[in-house]
Amino acid sequence: MPAQLTLAVDLMGGDLGPRSTLPAALNFAQANPELAIILVGEASTAPSSLPDNVHFVVSTQVVSMSDKPAYALRNKQDSSMWKAIDLVARGEAQACISAGNTGALMAMGKYLLKTFPGIDRPAICKAVPTAKGASYVLDLGANVDCTSEQLVQFALMGSVLAETAGVSSPSVGLLNIGSEDIKGNEQIRLASALLESNDHLNYVGYIEGDGIFTGAADVVVCDGFVGNVALKVSEGVARLLASYLRELLEGGFWNRLVGQIARPLLLKWHTKFDPARYNGASFLGLQGVVVKSHGSVDAKGFECALAVAKEQAAGDIPNKINHQIADCLH
Amino acid sequence: MPAQLTLAVDLMGGDLGPRSTLPAALNFAQANPELAIILVGEASTAPSSLPDNVHFVVSTQVVSMSDKPAYALRNKQDSSMWKAIDLVARGEAQACISAGNTGALMAMGKYLLKTFPGIDRPAICKAVPTAKGASYVLDLGANVDCTSEQLVQFALMGSVLAETAGVSSPSVGLLNIGSEDIKGNEQIRLASALLESNDHLNYVGYIEGDGIFTGAADVVVCDGFVGNVALKVSEGVARLLASYLRELLEGGFWNRLVGQIARPLLLKWHTKFDPARYNGASFLGLQGVVVKSHGSVDAKGFECALAVAKEQAAGDIPNKINHQIADCLH
Repeated sequence: MPAQLTLAVDLMGGDLGPRSTLPAALNFAQANPELAIILVGEASTAPSSLPDNVHFVVSTQVVSMSDKPAYALRNKQDSSMWKAIDLVARGEAQACISAGNTGALMAMGKYLLKTFPGIDRPAICKAVPTAKGASYVLDLGANVDCTSEQLVQFALMGSVLAETAGVSSPSVGLLNIGSEDIKGNEQIRLASALLESNDHLNYVGYIEGDGIFTGAADVVVCDGFVGNVALKVSEGVARLLASYLRELLEGGFWNRLVGQIARPLLLKWHTKFDPARYNGASFLGLQGVVVKSHGSVDAKGFECALAVAKEQAAGDIPNKINHQIADCLH
Repeated sequence: MPAQLTLAVDLMGGDLGPRSTLPAALNFAQANPELAIILVGEASTAPSSLPDNVHFVVSTQVVSMSDKPAYALRNKQDSSMWKAIDLVARGEAQACISAGNTGALMAMGKYLLKTFPGIDRPAICKAVPTAKGASYVLDLGANVDCTSEQLVQFALMGSVLAETAGVSSPSVGLLNIGSEDIKGNEQIRLASALLESNDHLNYVGYIEGDGIFTGAADVVVCDGFVGNVALKVSEGVARLLASYLRELLEGGFWNRLVGQIARPLLLKWHTKFDPARYNGASFLGLQGVVVKSHGSVDAKGFECALAVAKEQAAGDIPNKINHQIADCLH
């Protein structure tokens, strides 16, 4: 662990690009003077002066949202995304953060950082709000079809993350469509047996989709297709409910008045499930910290992703995962 | 189509059993005097007097929530569930409704009613609230692993349902984890090609989890594992958000006052996404209408399931599905 943690920031990713990533990074650097931050972006985006703990690296290419991962890997080696990850690969930064193309970020992350021995493929993991606080859900989309062994790897990696965040002996649930043994398919049943027999895990059995949000387990394991749908559904429902409420509070004088009175409370309520507040998904299993920010967030949201990256770099998550997996293989 | 539609009601299913199903059925019979309703339940639950359009059939067994489907099929042939479905099979009722064990209901439905030729397995379909009104999502849990051909059958059946509910040329979306062609697995890509080339369908392509709730498609098709998780997640998030709001409005004098003022509006808001209001899932593909009510709903919620059953029986959904599938096979 170097004396000073350094975060590499891909300035060019996300819907807003530098308009969101740059102010977020500068603000974060100011709030965390013990950190160093390396901004990677096109020369035109470089501020005229930089604080002492912020540096700028020029890139000439941008990975677009429509670039296929294999294309980006071959042809965008001078992109802000590539260079930010490469800083981690060279040991010049301990984490990189991007709001760009998820597939390209995963492909470059695997190519430049590699996975640890015993990990077939990285998984995307994110904390989601629950009635009890937060749970870590993985995989959220990196692996469409997963073997039972991969689901166990996800459980191990998610447990490391939860433990580092302060949860002792985190409970692990396997996402299924019923709590009885009869439900689910072969792969799920086999994964459940493997999780049950793993001494390194506190496996609590199957949980259903609503159990994610009651906080039925600290770590929720599923394949990337199901996890991605679950995450997007949760965001969609939250947005729909917020828009219902907005509509109601705009209909007529009395409703608008009630809306004005209740406004501070409703804002507080809305923030509790704001995807931007829970922003920052980790690519677990790589030999370095890579954090993906939601593409649509503003500077405040991007700062949340920076905070996730800082926490994981400070917690030395990749090496802890390596040790956990190595322990299980012996 | 008989002159008088008859609904068969399994009184014994659900968490509350006859305490919820009986008042709901009696109320529904009163509000719909043109209908006949056959109540099926244990003799002890029979009211001393019944309205003209309500009849009672005695059953001696109850399917419990823990009964495995195969066990219930072999050993519970005098249950309220079995007898309610059997009334449909014999043509004495045009629809049956149960709040009981989903797996047993599906197994008995398939055994007693059979599927139509060309339909491999029934699918569970439900209307979910969206920003534009409602969308029909299927499968919600009957089929854990689905072939591409089954997904096309789901699209055809869901389209019949949407059309009968008044949507002309309903749009069909395939649930996936990205809108680009590169995402998803082999089965999804093949299903997309089949949907694209089917002249009977208005296929609009892939939609993501949040797209369900923006109303991106009138019919959303997915395998039963993903659909079940999506449905449960949506219910879980709605409950979590409602409980956040309740908590906020109970903290301190001012908040409680705001809560009192905003109460009627918040109740209205809460109802808009209330699972009980959108209660009633249909088992499509069977040669008869079978509607499953949520197990935890009260009498008002169970009435919603009765309304769904009435609509589908009146709309002659099973035969319309049969014709639609037959058309596609020729």
